[in-house]
Amino acid sequence: MDLLYISGLLATAAFAASGVLAALGKHIDLFGAVVVAVVTAVGGGTLRDLILDAPVFWLRDEAWLLVAVVIGCFAFFLRSQLDRYGNALAYLDAMGVALVAAGALQKCIELGLPGLHGVALGVITGIGGGLIRDTLTSRDTLLVSPELYATPIILGLTVQYVTHQWFGLSNIAALFLGGATIFIFRALAIRLDLRMPSRFVNQWSE
Amino acid sequence: MDLLYISGLLATAAFAASGVLAALGKHIDLFGAVVVAVVTAVGGGTLRDLILDAPVFWLRDEAWLLVAVVIGCFAFFLRSQLDRYGNALAYLDAMGVALVAAGALQKCIELGLPGLHGVALGVITGIGGGLIRDTLTSRDTLLVSPELYATPIILGLTVQYVTHQWFGLSNIAALFLGGATIFIFRALAIRLDLRMPSRFVNQWSE
Amino acid sequence: MDLLYISGLLATAAFAASGVLAALGKHIDLFGAVVVAVVTAVGGGTLRDLILDAPVFWLRDEAWLLVAVVIGCFAFFLRSQLDRYGNALAYLDAMGVALVAAGALQKCIELGLPGLHGVALGVITGIGGGLIRDTLTSRDTLLVSPELYATPIILGLTVQYVTHQWFGLSNIAALFLGGATIFIFRALAIRLDLRMPSRFVNQWSE
Repeated sequence: MDLLYISGLLATAAFAASGVLAALGKHIDLFGAVVVAVVTAVGGGTLRDLILDAPVFWLRDEAWLLVAVVIGCFAFFLRSQLDRYGNALAYLDAMGVALVAAGALQKCIELGLPGLHGVALGVITGIGGGLIRDTLTSRDTLLVSPELYATPIILGLTVQYVTHQWFGLSNIAALFLGGATIFIFRALAIRLDLRMPSRFVNQWSE
Repeated sequence: MDLLYISGLLATAAFAASGVLAALGKHIDLFGAVVVAVVTAVGGGTLRDLILDAPVFWLRDEAWLLVAVVIGCFAFFLRSQLDRYGNALAYLDAMGVALVAAGALQKCIELGLPGLHGVALGVITGIGGGLIRDTLTSRDTLLVSPELYATPIILGLTVQYVTHQWFGLSNIAALFLGGATIFIFRALAIRLDLRMPSRFVNQWSE
Repeated sequence: MDLLYISGLLATAAFAASGVLAALGKHIDLFGAVVVAVVTAVGGGTLRDLILDAPVFWLRDEAWLLVAVVIGCFAFFLRSQLDRYGNALAYLDAMGVALVAAGALQKCIELGLPGLHGVALGVITGIGGGLIRDTLTSRDTLLVSPELYATPIILGLTVQYVTHQWFGLSNIAALFLGGATIFIFRALAIRLDLRMPSRFVNQWSE
């Protein structure tokens, strides 16, 4: 699927840039930043392929690493411009997560896995790279932030699965709908500082 | 083995609840907590299967994810009750570790691996999920705590291996003995605040 | 290759010792330290084998775990002597990284992978164990330190690839040259406190 490939490269670029931005609170040099960019960009998909026992995607095609390296370099030199846009890191992460999570669910549907597995793998693929990025740069992960993070992903993937399996939407339409749901919901959450109803939030009991 | 399966589900439940409890020092919402619960619950076994090049266990059977998700939700809503029991996190972790580590060693024995490999894989499987949990929730891992953590696991697995290979105990009896040794020793360590003799402890040289 | 095997064991020993030293800022006991030592020692190579879908190296030969366990114990008891040598952790890490990264690139060349893949896998293999070590012991990773860390690795691997593929150096000569470049450059960076030209460094913008 050409569209899947292009959206994958777009996700790679977004994650690579997010990796550089995540490192800005620390001393880091160009090559360190590129390493963080690459690991963030390919981390989630690598986890997906290992779990599914598929060949790791970036070994079959040089485009993935090339995009991650080039965008990582660009993002490093343009970091102050990027950083000026409030929440650039969060939006880039949201775009990468949406594209990658929806693609992983799509792959699981093709493999005939049950919906629960597909959603779980979609979540792991979507946030895997970002979790590794936050760990490498010693940040609190987005999972334990007050913002809505896992919710848009789980909701979007559920929409994608249900519209495809139950309402007969085509693969690609469901993929687009699921990815868009994730991104728009997450972007609104960042923009409007949405929170879960307090009953569903842990109020920092420490 | 039915018993192995049931003890695996029990470990999954214990780890899932421990994942939710570990996140309580942070802002986290229901879905974030469920993601931490699931990753904690299946993390160690996933590492084991990847290293042994076996199909990842939770892809073959929906029960694992279901248990992790359901227990994760329950634990989230009952978190203040659970948290009230001092050290609930540590005991749940101990139970998960004991069941999972002993099961992994058993699998390695069946595969004909040497004892050293079996113990190493048992330790990795036992603590892998917990280490990922502590990393995701930005806690110091239990490995670098003053409590006895690795010791009960290594001792219990050694007991299991030796009684089975050298003294002819059946698989299942050795598994039970090993798991019980890990859990009881670790529970006593928590309860009585046991420490290693000071010669075997690093006294915080920083 | 005998030389590759011996250099692999040397890297294992260096990483195991570095794992123990990294834990010294924390409460840790003998068995906890040995677990950190083993995970640090085999972590990078395990990642390499999983990504290449090769059998995990330490399962095929008991020597790897034995060396990691024995050196881990020695390093624990001799920790104050080791720690007295300023930067022992950094030098041991540099030795492990050099040996392991160059070996991984060599393996990728043999598999016929493109240079970009080889360098990326070399970096991941070289720093993987150290990143896991720093995460387990709650340290900032060496990637986000002011020192030159990724640069010597990427430079040395490029030298290795170019001299072998373009200038016809033999496998083993290129491997030696690449590993030596990484280690010497990194050691000089530690000794002389080298930094990247400021244009290539992020100045702690937080």
